[in-house]
Amino acid sequence: MKIFEEIESEVQSYARAFPRIFNRAKGEQMWDEEGNEYLDFLAGAGTLNYGHNNDLFKGALIDYIQNDGVTHGLDMHTKAKGEFLQTFNDKILKPRGMEYMVQFTGPTGTNAVEAAMKIARNVTGQQNIVTFTNGFHGVSLGSLAATGNSHHRDAAGVSLSGTHRIPYDGYLGENIDTTEYLDKVLSDSSSGIDSPAAVIVETVQGEGGINAASIEWLQNLQSVCKKHGLLLIVDDIQAGCGRTGDYFSFEEAGIEPDIITLSKSLGGYGLPFAVVLMKPELDQWKPGEHNGTFRGNNLAFVTAKAALEHYWSDQQFSKDIKRKGRYISERLENIVSQYGEGNFTAKGRGMFRGINCVNGEIAGKITSNAFKKGLIIETSGADDHVVKFLCPLIISDDNLKKGIDIVESAIREVCAKVDEIPEEKVYFYAG
Amino acid sequence: MKIFEEIESEVQSYARAFPRIFNRAKGEQMWDEEGNEYLDFLAGAGTLNYGHNNDLFKGALIDYIQNDGVTHGLDMHTKAKGEFLQTFNDKILKPRGMEYMVQFTGPTGTNAVEAAMKIARNVTGQQNIVTFTNGFHGVSLGSLAATGNSHHRDAAGVSLSGTHRIPYDGYLGENIDTTEYLDKVLSDSSSGIDSPAAVIVETVQGEGGINAASIEWLQNLQSVCKKHGLLLIVDDIQAGCGRTGDYFSFEEAGIEPDIITLSKSLGGYGLPFAVVLMKPELDQWKPGEHNGTFRGNNLAFVTAKAALEHYWSDQQFSKDIKRKGRYISERLENIVSQYGEGNFTAKGRGMFRGINCVNGEIAGKITSNAFKKGLIIETSGADDHVVKFLCPLIISDDNLKKGIDIVESAIREVCAKVDEIPEEKVYFYAG
Amino acid sequence: MKIFEEIESEVQSYARAFPRIFNRAKGEQMWDEEGNEYLDFLAGAGTLNYGHNNDLFKGALIDYIQNDGVTHGLDMHTKAKGEFLQTFNDKILKPRGMEYMVQFTGPTGTNAVEAAMKIARNVTGQQNIVTFTNGFHGVSLGSLAATGNSHHRDAAGVSLSGTHRIPYDGYLGENIDTTEYLDKVLSDSSSGIDSPAAVIVETVQGEGGINAASIEWLQNLQSVCKKHGLLLIVDDIQAGCGRTGDYFSFEEAGIEPDIITLSKSLGGYGLPFAVVLMKPELDQWKPGEHNGTFRGNNLAFVTAKAALEHYWSDQQFSKDIKRKGRYISERLENIVSQYGEGNFTAKGRGMFRGINCVNGEIAGKITSNAFKKGLIIETSGADDHVVKFLCPLIISDDNLKKGIDIVESAIREVCAKVDEIPEEKVYFYAG
Amino acid sequence: MKIFEEIESEVQSYARAFPRIFNRAKGEQMWDEEGNEYLDFLAGAGTLNYGHNNDLFKGALIDYIQNDGVTHGLDMHTKAKGEFLQTFNDKILKPRGMEYMVQFTGPTGTNAVEAAMKIARNVTGQQNIVTFTNGFHGVSLGSLAATGNSHHRDAAGVSLSGTHRIPYDGYLGENIDTTEYLDKVLSDSSSGIDSPAAVIVETVQGEGGINAASIEWLQNLQSVCKKHGLLLIVDDIQAGCGRTGDYFSFEEAGIEPDIITLSKSLGGYGLPFAVVLMKPELDQWKPGEHNGTFRGNNLAFVTAKAALEHYWSDQQFSKDIKRKGRYISERLENIVSQYGEGNFTAKGRGMFRGINCVNGEIAGKITSNAFKKGLIIETSGADDHVVKFLCPLIISDDNLKKGIDIVESAIREVCAKVDEIPEEKVYFYAG
Repeated sequence: MKIFEEIESEVQSYARAFPRIFNRAKGEQMWDEEGNEYLDFLAGAGTLNYGHNNDLFKGALIDYIQNDGVTHGLDMHTKAKGEFLQTFNDKILKPRGMEYMVQFTGPTGTNAVEAAMKIARNVTGQQNIVTFTNGFHGVSLGSLAATGNSHHRDAAGVSLSGTHRIPYDGYLGENIDTTEYLDKVLSDSSSGIDSPAAVIVETVQGEGGINAASIEWLQNLQSVCKKHGLLLIVDDIQAGCGRTGDYFSFEEAGIEPDIITLSKSLGGYGLPFAVVLMKPELDQWKPGEHNGTFRGNNLAFVTAKAALEHYWSDQQFSKDIKRKGRYISERLENIVSQYGEGNFTAKGRGMFRGINCVNGEIAGKITSNAFKKGLIIETSGADDHVVKFLCPLIISDDNLKKGIDIVESAIREVCAKVDEIPEEKVYFYAG
Repeated sequence: MKIFEEIESEVQSYARAFPRIFNRAKGEQMWDEEGNEYLDFLAGAGTLNYGHNNDLFKGALIDYIQNDGVTHGLDMHTKAKGEFLQTFNDKILKPRGMEYMVQFTGPTGTNAVEAAMKIARNVTGQQNIVTFTNGFHGVSLGSLAATGNSHHRDAAGVSLSGTHRIPYDGYLGENIDTTEYLDKVLSDSSSGIDSPAAVIVETVQGEGGINAASIEWLQNLQSVCKKHGLLLIVDDIQAGCGRTGDYFSFEEAGIEPDIITLSKSLGGYGLPFAVVLMKPELDQWKPGEHNGTFRGNNLAFVTAKAALEHYWSDQQFSKDIKRKGRYISERLENIVSQYGEGNFTAKGRGMFRGINCVNGEIAGKITSNAFKKGLIIETSGADDHVVKFLCPLIISDDNLKKGIDIVESAIREVCAKVDEIPEEKVYFYAG
Repeated sequence: MKIFEEIESEVQSYARAFPRIFNRAKGEQMWDEEGNEYLDFLAGAGTLNYGHNNDLFKGALIDYIQNDGVTHGLDMHTKAKGEFLQTFNDKILKPRGMEYMVQFTGPTGTNAVEAAMKIARNVTGQQNIVTFTNGFHGVSLGSLAATGNSHHRDAAGVSLSGTHRIPYDGYLGENIDTTEYLDKVLSDSSSGIDSPAAVIVETVQGEGGINAASIEWLQNLQSVCKKHGLLLIVDDIQAGCGRTGDYFSFEEAGIEPDIITLSKSLGGYGLPFAVVLMKPELDQWKPGEHNGTFRGNNLAFVTAKAALEHYWSDQQFSKDIKRKGRYISERLENIVSQYGEGNFTAKGRGMFRGINCVNGEIAGKITSNAFKKGLIIETSGADDHVVKFLCPLIISDDNLKKGIDIVESAIREVCAKVDEIPEEKVYFYAG
Repeated sequence: MKIFEEIESEVQSYARAFPRIFNRAKGEQMWDEEGNEYLDFLAGAGTLNYGHNNDLFKGALIDYIQNDGVTHGLDMHTKAKGEFLQTFNDKILKPRGMEYMVQFTGPTGTNAVEAAMKIARNVTGQQNIVTFTNGFHGVSLGSLAATGNSHHRDAAGVSLSGTHRIPYDGYLGENIDTTEYLDKVLSDSSSGIDSPAAVIVETVQGEGGINAASIEWLQNLQSVCKKHGLLLIVDDIQAGCGRTGDYFSFEEAGIEPDIITLSKSLGGYGLPFAVVLMKPELDQWKPGEHNGTFRGNNLAFVTAKAALEHYWSDQQFSKDIKRKGRYISERLENIVSQYGEGNFTAKGRGMFRGINCVNGEIAGKITSNAFKKGLIIETSGADDHVVKFLCPLIISDDNLKKGIDIVESAIREVCAKVDEIPEEKVYFYAG
């Protein structure tokens, strides 16, 4: 560990919560240097939907490297890229009747978001982009203006502009449809909200605390966008690639975003990769306007293609995710009804689930207790108050059960300790 | 090619200049699907200093994958990351007496630049960052404000702020040291240039047209920074990792930047990777303030470590780069003196060289003629008027000669054709 | 009129609605060059609360000029300024137990708003200022960012930043207290609303359409500001100086703003004048930080002092305004209940009243019909859909009745004409 | 004085330098409450070109008030406004062959500058405006972005954007024509200076330290603007209205600005007044886009008209200014050559002159010494290091001589005292 303490920056985050040196990983499991085994319910924050080092892709990856396939190709046409495009078109776009152009951006989510916001602004000639409370879209300056979290925003060092924040589904209480508020300010020429280019939205807010928008709200949002001529950007970086059950998280709502961002599990093997999908009429880029050195991470093209072929050629994988999602949901509902007398609530959609704790302190105790029991699991939300279940989608039923059991046991222990505290001190239950 | 035309975005750039489908690469060579062989003098725009698919690293990479080493690890400690850090410290930092903290940012250059600008702003509490004419630092909004190229800037769709532009070395003519201008505006409380956090500079401007700052100018720049309390950020993403002869491009100047960005050839094998180095007292990040999903691209850690061990354990590689650099310089000087009657000039430092043509039309004809002869070579500069020599540093002497021969022959042919044009039409020589 | 058409800019606004050349004015009356008499229910958009050329101040003004009192004094101490300050302190601040420092800004409302926003930002070290839908605070860039109207905002030519817009009282319907929304986003570290320096609010939105905030909402707003450490800026430029019945429009709510802007009727005689009042601990200005050539418009000091002495030495004027306000309210309620079958509603507080029409077309017909009958009256609101009653506070009861009679008759005629339109065309009633 | 200390804001500036209560003023003279007489070489910072309370206008002003002429008229047509426009056209525009539209903005300089910048941005569709080192254009946020002084800029509390700063004439030394630098960055698509809407320039920088641009530089500036399609805005608020000898300060250079701002002495009597002049094709304002309550300060129209008629009906006044300007120049040259051994230099044009001292400490001692001798005179420049001569243009020859004699004597005394200081302490001479 010495070298990390010596010269790695203080910016470290996950490394603080899981202070081990990991050296091997497979499926839903990781091992540290001392040989300890862990179940991974963090899964690269949604990057490892297909698990660590999935054997179904590994062979293709090694073969490609072995044969000196192009590794780095800027944005040049390569065989690997062509095959990825073809497979993505055949397995994902066409079967869903989706016609989109694919832009290879720098291979990180924030880069895709930057590109999506740029093209929306350029095509419409408007600067303002509607964003939502608790949204997370990355931390480079363009994306950061769309991100809600003050911990990240305050690090900008400059003022963040060009966005307007609207309350997300449920933010003003259950009876208020916040898309009506959006409709109102867009209809009112004196509302002070400058005419927007687009809306950027996550269907389930991951970092924001596993807030799942209702299907109706998403549909209403699309209607308001159409009514006022706003482009609808779905940032599907965390919720996409099967996390909620379908390949795209918005399929259930039957909406058709104008622009879609994908990254994280897109590459399949955990390799850096990101794309922007946009309707053909929006593809008004000039050559090289948005560029970047690693647009052609061909190793990721190879594994991405393999992932699409193996998991998205039929409905089986999707059905399996939904089945597991229901299982998680049931277990979490059961847990929250058993413990803490209403202090916990279950949230989420598909295999994108969370337990909302009354505060970050409780949530943190639960996850660190779980880590001691061999489970890697993290919190999210404004106050890190939501225990976030993001296990690989390919997890075995046994391990899924085992992981949830660990959380349940951790909650039980944390609640027991809280109960021991003299009553006047459990103020954190009140919030 | 059909799939590219069908669904890849119009934003493609290099793919337009080299309209082939490449499927294999090794060292300084690439092959297309039809089996044609090319010499690569573009080298991933500086990402392939060690050539394509370098066999010295390939084994390590395959072994790591074979053994299910952690591929994706967010920012968690992994064995691969620890070994990279140790090697970077042992081979690069310590021998040069450099004490820096290493921040793993998202694995693209622009992400490292965003982080560098943020930390400079946060530590100093100032927003303004001094940038230079013709500088290139990336296209996400924070970096883009530092980038000079209007083709990229105009795509922002919003106004870019928080930077002030100062003429680069030589911009106002040979007799004017533009650091004196910087000194003057910083000394003048009424200059209208808000007190800056930092200066961000490339020692050789790659995308800006292979403009190499003089050693003296870099030293003066550091002095002005120290005098006025500005942090000096050297963006060594393209010029670093040996391109100019030393590992860092600023070593020759003997300056000590406060912050350094590295990417491109850092990973060794062309895999996405980027870091920010900062003096320990500047490492005031709070946990996770600047985050990103792919901060832990462990495959790149493996190849990066191998590259450092193989090439930077002694002075041999550095000497070899300098020797080849001198050869390139001599050849280019010879070429520009032979052709075009003063219309060409040679530029650059080390193996970061270019031929300045009178305009982009000529330069474009030269590179497309060269491509027909089997050489991949690009232009850069405001008007794409500089033929850019960025061949792998490990290129064989024969292939280096061969590549330059091709350019020479391309220039000869282009000039010959120009001479055939009736005199009154060769206006583009006048510029 | 020729000279106006020849060389006055197209930016003219009121001159278009009232295309006459006026050459004399007194109290609530104006005359044009052809000798036509008009009742003035526009009153300098709230600048002529004491009427045109009030004889009570006129003598003092002429005497001052006659005796060569200092006319222009930059911000130097003059006798006239000292006497204004003394009178303002004695008649306004002290009797209300208000302790404020007085800043003389450039003599326009927008300049006062710019200064208020600056000092709020400087004292708190925060940039963001909370503003409200339909707010109007001026059109210089700082104020314009706080103004809601897109007609004005779109003229900026640059993006307007540093503010966040919150729905005003009633904007989300009668049952939603929008201060709760403000409280929520300020309590949520991930709301994406950067920690604000201040709130800037009008108690009655004049240009926004005569929207009068409820007393309770204003009190809740103050509570939310106190809870989260935001400064409360009341922009009392149009609603202050007696318009709602008290000298300050917020007196009825019993709140204590941290910063207050005044202008318009402050000078008494229609002369340019503006001040910022701020609690003593906020007066952290450095000498001359916010300056301007006309901070010392001494003629306005003379008339402002006279106005304070004549009208604000006792409660009489205030009572009279409230009495007239009730009369206007009753008449307007009566009118809206008689005409248009629910298509009109009455709005406002004190002598700051309006009739909300279904759209701007109807409202414009009413005011232009009224003008033909000798009444100068304007519209306001996002769609110019509110007929705005802003007559001088000193208006005689007869003329007040006469003016309202004219509006009533105009409405009757406009409605009659609308009724003649075949039913399927009266769509504008539906909105 | 008590009331000023008690409730006037700390933002006071001139009041600190001249801590008296003034109660009477005439021509170039002022009197305080104790009857002391002062010569005024500050003249409202250029507002009182025609002196205090000029008898030639006073009668017209009193008559107008006496007869209840419209005082406040928003932007409605009034007789007074029409007569001003006619006179301005007849006496100023037509004789110079100038065709411009006149926009009445809020009656302060900064408001006119805001309007000028807006219309330039709207007409061109560009945001960026080129500004100059040491320029001063006002302190509302739009103008402040164009102002160079950090004392004012730092008070903004937000970042100032939308401008790019270029060195003013002489800033890079006598041999460098900074318009060439401007030409270069505008010609270079990779310079990082976004395509500008306009240049805004003062022909003589008043607040910046009485820096007079050369005639040639102004002409070159216009050429560069024409070449690149930039609008040329001359901010003639301080240098205009005769200060440099002609009505407009740019007449000598024979240039034709696209947009001109006027204020300060425009109103003649020191009353708030400002206009923007723009070429007819630029008058693309929509009705009321840039508005403001005090656009119709009719008292100023009356005195402005009188000033034009009395002083600008023939060449006499202009000749007289130039004659006095030469006298001031000769006296100042003589003074700087006599005292301080090269530590002083004379600057300026026409009756817009200054003595550059080695630092602000010396300059401040000179002006405070002068004030003790009955002369009101101020400093300007980044370090308040320039003694600024801005006496009324109508000053008698005797008083002009007397004022300069006082400064000369003040300099003599200050230099004598400095000489008494032990040599090693007079470091401030070195700068």
